[in-house]
Amino acid sequence: MNVTIRGQTRHYRTVAFDAKQNAVLLIEQRLLPHEFKIIPTRDFRATALAIKDMVVRGAGAIGATAAYGLAQGARAFRGRDLKKFSAHVDTVYQTLKAARPTAVDPVNAMNGVREMMRAGETVEEQQALALAAAEEFANEDARHCAEIGAHGSKLIRHGMKVLTHCNAGWLAFVDVGSATAPMYAAQAQGKKFHVFCDETRPRSQGATLTAWELAQQKISHQIIADNAAGHLMQRGEIDLVIVGSDRTLGRTGEVANKIGTYTKAVLAARHHIPFYVAIPLSTIDWNLKSGFDIPIEERHESEVLGAWGVVRNQKPETSRQKIEKNVYVRVANPASGARNPGFDVTPAELITGIITPVGIFKPRELWVRRQRLGFLNK
Amino acid sequence: MNVTIRGQTRHYRTVAFDAKQNAVLLIEQRLLPHEFKIIPTRDFRATALAIKDMVVRGAGAIGATAAYGLAQGARAFRGRDLKKFSAHVDTVYQTLKAARPTAVDPVNAMNGVREMMRAGETVEEQQALALAAAEEFANEDARHCAEIGAHGSKLIRHGMKVLTHCNAGWLAFVDVGSATAPMYAAQAQGKKFHVFCDETRPRSQGATLTAWELAQQKISHQIIADNAAGHLMQRGEIDLVIVGSDRTLGRTGEVANKIGTYTKAVLAARHHIPFYVAIPLSTIDWNLKSGFDIPIEERHESEVLGAWGVVRNQKPETSRQKIEKNVYVRVANPASGARNPGFDVTPAELITGIITPVGIFKPRELWVRRQRLGFLNK
Repeated sequence: MNVTIRGQTRHYRTVAFDAKQNAVLLIEQRLLPHEFKIIPTRDFRATALAIKDMVVRGAGAIGATAAYGLAQGARAFRGRDLKKFSAHVDTVYQTLKAARPTAVDPVNAMNGVREMMRAGETVEEQQALALAAAEEFANEDARHCAEIGAHGSKLIRHGMKVLTHCNAGWLAFVDVGSATAPMYAAQAQGKKFHVFCDETRPRSQGATLTAWELAQQKISHQIIADNAAGHLMQRGEIDLVIVGSDRTLGRTGEVANKIGTYTKAVLAARHHIPFYVAIPLSTIDWNLKSGFDIPIEERHESEVLGAWGVVRNQKPETSRQKIEKNVYVRVANPASGARNPGFDVTPAELITGIITPVGIFKPRELWVRRQRLGFLNK
Repeated sequence: MNVTIRGQTRHYRTVAFDAKQNAVLLIEQRLLPHEFKIIPTRDFRATALAIKDMVVRGAGAIGATAAYGLAQGARAFRGRDLKKFSAHVDTVYQTLKAARPTAVDPVNAMNGVREMMRAGETVEEQQALALAAAEEFANEDARHCAEIGAHGSKLIRHGMKVLTHCNAGWLAFVDVGSATAPMYAAQAQGKKFHVFCDETRPRSQGATLTAWELAQQKISHQIIADNAAGHLMQRGEIDLVIVGSDRTLGRTGEVANKIGTYTKAVLAARHHIPFYVAIPLSTIDWNLKSGFDIPIEERHESEVLGAWGVVRNQKPETSRQKIEKNVYVRVANPASGARNPGFDVTPAELITGIITPVGIFKPRELWVRRQRLGFLNK
């Protein structure tokens, strides 16, 4: 998407590749929203570290980063021995995989790259194919998000007030995003609407990343405390909810997403407000038979007990020095602990529709339409 | 309630009076949970300023502070001229009233004190009656809260997990509190239970004040993000919800309370979890005919856009110097704004019962029982 820094507007992807330098170019997301910076990782180990240290996060974005990282590692190999090359690529693969061991996207992305590479008969050919495959993976991620936007934008009418939760924006993908894709598409169609961003405690991705994205695209928006959506719905101030998903069960239509998503779905159902989930096909889990089988990560209590921010109200474009004031403050009573479940599961009955790159489906329709949704084995 | 500081346990009230020094003694609530300190206000203007500057907050607590402040001001008068004395008391009254112009409790409390004073025939007699009346107001507040506890404690069974929102604890009253009263009473009865404190963004009174209170009373508890209650209810981890109320409509049973209360009531209803509201009788509004007529304060956006805390994880007992590190950090995107409604309204249908000093009532029963609830004119 376009980013305006010091009056200059340029198009960026969350993840890109500089073939000349053999470097992966990443938005340093840990500095957002207080600073926008692109950092190059110059070898596959640095790329793996960037995934591990959360320079880049989000399913699509880390998938593309791993794909590029594999190509980067392959391209760094010097020599013509295919066997040695193959062993080297194995090391690269394992290093990138270990950077985020629970994520499936990097593994899927890298498997795709390796499959493409097999068509090459020389090291050089395989290196070229690796990069082409990584580029194709990234382009496909962006294209799928744009398709989500094309379908989902029909739901946004002029003058609407839309609620979103957490960040399922372009920063979580290569471009465009999932939950934000319909908003960007609707804006491109000339529609005016207003977005309420749930703050999304404890990590505040709504207040930081989603608000930053919407501000960059000049979409009218306000941040609200997670407590406020119920009241706004009751007073008729929310017309539509769109969220993302970390995992959607193809068999049941249940959706696992950031903690608090379920609460918003319950509130939306009570107020007869449409509740949509926007997802790329890769997040559909065709195996699990119940949302209760989805493991819910219990995260560190420090997230709940405090907050991260900058000490003074700074302007968007700040120097590196100022950002070093990004500090953790302990808000809570020092003698108290916290529970911190990271995700929750929303049942199909509360979901109006699932927005995918190939259309909008009722949650219980996913299984029936599984062939169209890319689940070809059944 | 008892407070333990540096190993020493003592009973404190939120508001008390030192007759010898003619000083109101207040817990400096702006320092909690990071520091516990009693500050004396030595004249009525200082007492008014303490109300204005939020040294003391909460309906019962500011009522008692104003009552004591009026007695303090009256007792500072030197002379025997009843007319001059009366003019002086008027000044004191107006000064204290202006400290929190929208609150009804200080006005009600001071009116009660003035009525009692009328029985005195000399300045000296009226001064003595003023203090006696203020003491009686404070004692009655504490007694009513204890009665809420006696009724409400029946709801808490051994092993239960109880959710509360915001701070309706003893810090908001003279002692014991409203939503916390059943917990303190149940603990005194030897019951073991666990409390989840909603963080209660944007001002985090649950994470700061309620958690501090429960830690001081050694009641098992954990802070949760406001987003987490829905998930915990879904997984069967919450058995009972008890909250306070800023205003309860006697005619409809609707309850206005801190933003997010309504959301918890909607979630509790979905999961068939009992949802109780604990209130002193003074918060019942017998006039308004609809919750939609309750004005909802829109508070400053800075509350949503950041957080207040201490820079290092400090121990409960810290020196004054360390507390000066209590800082505001900007969490949100610098270019984004916020909506910040401070309260919401929960309809009667979502409320299992209203816990009062005279018993537990269905919300729609309040009007029928209005005589017993102290509304004598109808």
